[in-house]
Amino acid sequence: MRDFSSDHAWLSLNTATVRQQWRLPEIVDACARHGIRAIAPWRDQVADCGLERAAALIRAHGLALSGYCRGGMFPAMDAAGRRAAIEDNIRAVDEAVALGSPCLVLVVGGLPGALAGKPLSRDLGRARAEVSDGIAALLEYARTVRMPLAIEPLHPMYAAERACVNTLEHALDLCDALDPGRTGDLGVAVDVYHVWWDPKLAGQIERAGARRLLAFHVCDWLVPTTDLLVDRGMMGDGVIDIRSIRRRMEEGGYAGFSEVEIFSAGNWWKRPGDEVLATCIERHRSCV
Amino acid sequence: MRDFSSDHAWLSLNTATVRQQWRLPEIVDACARHGIRAIAPWRDQVADCGLERAAALIRAHGLALSGYCRGGMFPAMDAAGRRAAIEDNIRAVDEAVALGSPCLVLVVGGLPGALAGKPLSRDLGRARAEVSDGIAALLEYARTVRMPLAIEPLHPMYAAERACVNTLEHALDLCDALDPGRTGDLGVAVDVYHVWWDPKLAGQIERAGARRLLAFHVCDWLVPTTDLLVDRGMMGDGVIDIRSIRRRMEEGGYAGFSEVEIFSAGNWWKRPGDEVLATCIERHRSCV
Repeated sequence: MRDFSSDHAWLSLNTATVRQQWRLPEIVDACARHGIRAIAPWRDQVADCGLERAAALIRAHGLALSGYCRGGMFPAMDAAGRRAAIEDNIRAVDEAVALGSPCLVLVVGGLPGALAGKPLSRDLGRARAEVSDGIAALLEYARTVRMPLAIEPLHPMYAAERACVNTLEHALDLCDALDPGRTGDLGVAVDVYHVWWDPKLAGQIERAGARRLLAFHVCDWLVPTTDLLVDRGMMGDGVIDIRSIRRRMEEGGYAGFSEVEIFSAGNWWKRPGDEVLATCIERHRSCV
Repeated sequence: MRDFSSDHAWLSLNTATVRQQWRLPEIVDACARHGIRAIAPWRDQVADCGLERAAALIRAHGLALSGYCRGGMFPAMDAAGRRAAIEDNIRAVDEAVALGSPCLVLVVGGLPGALAGKPLSRDLGRARAEVSDGIAALLEYARTVRMPLAIEPLHPMYAAERACVNTLEHALDLCDALDPGRTGDLGVAVDVYHVWWDPKLAGQIERAGARRLLAFHVCDWLVPTTDLLVDRGMMGDGVIDIRSIRRRMEEGGYAGFSEVEIFSAGNWWKRPGDEVLATCIERHRSCV
């Protein structure tokens, strides 16, 4: 297992972690200042900056990417909606290519309308079928531009609004069905926040193997958790045994970045960005 | 599948649904008033009323029980704590017998200290082993007094504080390990709130079979959900396809009550109890 205690060479910053403090150019500058060598930007932050400028900034600072957030959101009530989702995902793939990302992270979507607070269906089975169809269609395109897709199973508490793929096992079942040859074109993003509770986690990481372990995200589960979306903790402040999960990932063949992704409306989003990054670095050494 | 549309003969009221409005004697009276023929009381409400008086009231009103809430909470940091948990669970079994309950529901517990807001461990594997040991010990006693134990898998968002058994599959693995003979002494309580998201749900209900399907709880998952614990919805107000799950339960051999259990600090706990019960009855007919 790699030793993270003496440097932060394998720390990547998911830019949502400081989205309330800074826009993308400031984040890139801050990473340079703190010796952080990789980021995972979000589409809205890239759009705000402009794709070409974002790509140029990232290149100029010699930053690597650990992923691009995010594609997905495939289910819709009608064919036009599902087509629009695919088209938008194709744009996301192209952006990921332009930015030099190693993968496009997929948050697959849930019940149509739910994210907007007005669910139009209770049919989770149909949503799951549409997710499978959507990934299949996108994969066809993504292969032509050599952009791997990383299905991110989200915590089951997000099944309605954000992702109806909620376990690593389910995500890998999709990989088996859509990429039986294990080409590396389709894999998973493992975020400790979403999967730490799963009794089958270790076995499923092993099942995934190196070619399908495309990303590793860290933060922590706070006790108590006061908000379903924006009360994630800094590594070490919660109950996730992060290092054990990283060990499993490395035993499974993963050798990439640990991407810090913390949504924290009440705490970290309110602190100075430099303090947040310094804390991420310290906790990456001591807790990841 | 049984037709629930014309009466509420198979509705049971989990007494937590009106815990802010009434104490147990008032709840029993209200059930008589509304023609509700079963309840599932909580230990603290029974203790508040007195066990003998509670049992007498329930008998006097001809009420059935659909379960007794709750045993469990097995993990602890030391042997004394685990022994104390078993002893408390034995008292819960005895109370369940005195009340004429068909089963004792087990919320198995999570990381020691977490429920009190101060988690003392991150070792979920150890907690799970202690849960298995605790159920094994309790089962030995429960068999002597013929009280079936129903493991209730809780939603993964409760893994830290309340239950580290979070899927029906995991609960049934425990049943297989501890009661390989499928005697009916150990089974599961299926609460739609906890399991609706699970892609393996239908298969696991089938796997359980009649002898292990000991209880069925209903409420709904609201979109958005604003609190992890006390923002459950009334049946029909959320996104759970409750009837489909009940169909699976009945195909699996379950023929008991649908127990309504709604924790709702911001809505149903604030309304007059009679309005809540009338709504439960209406929604039991139209949505369960």
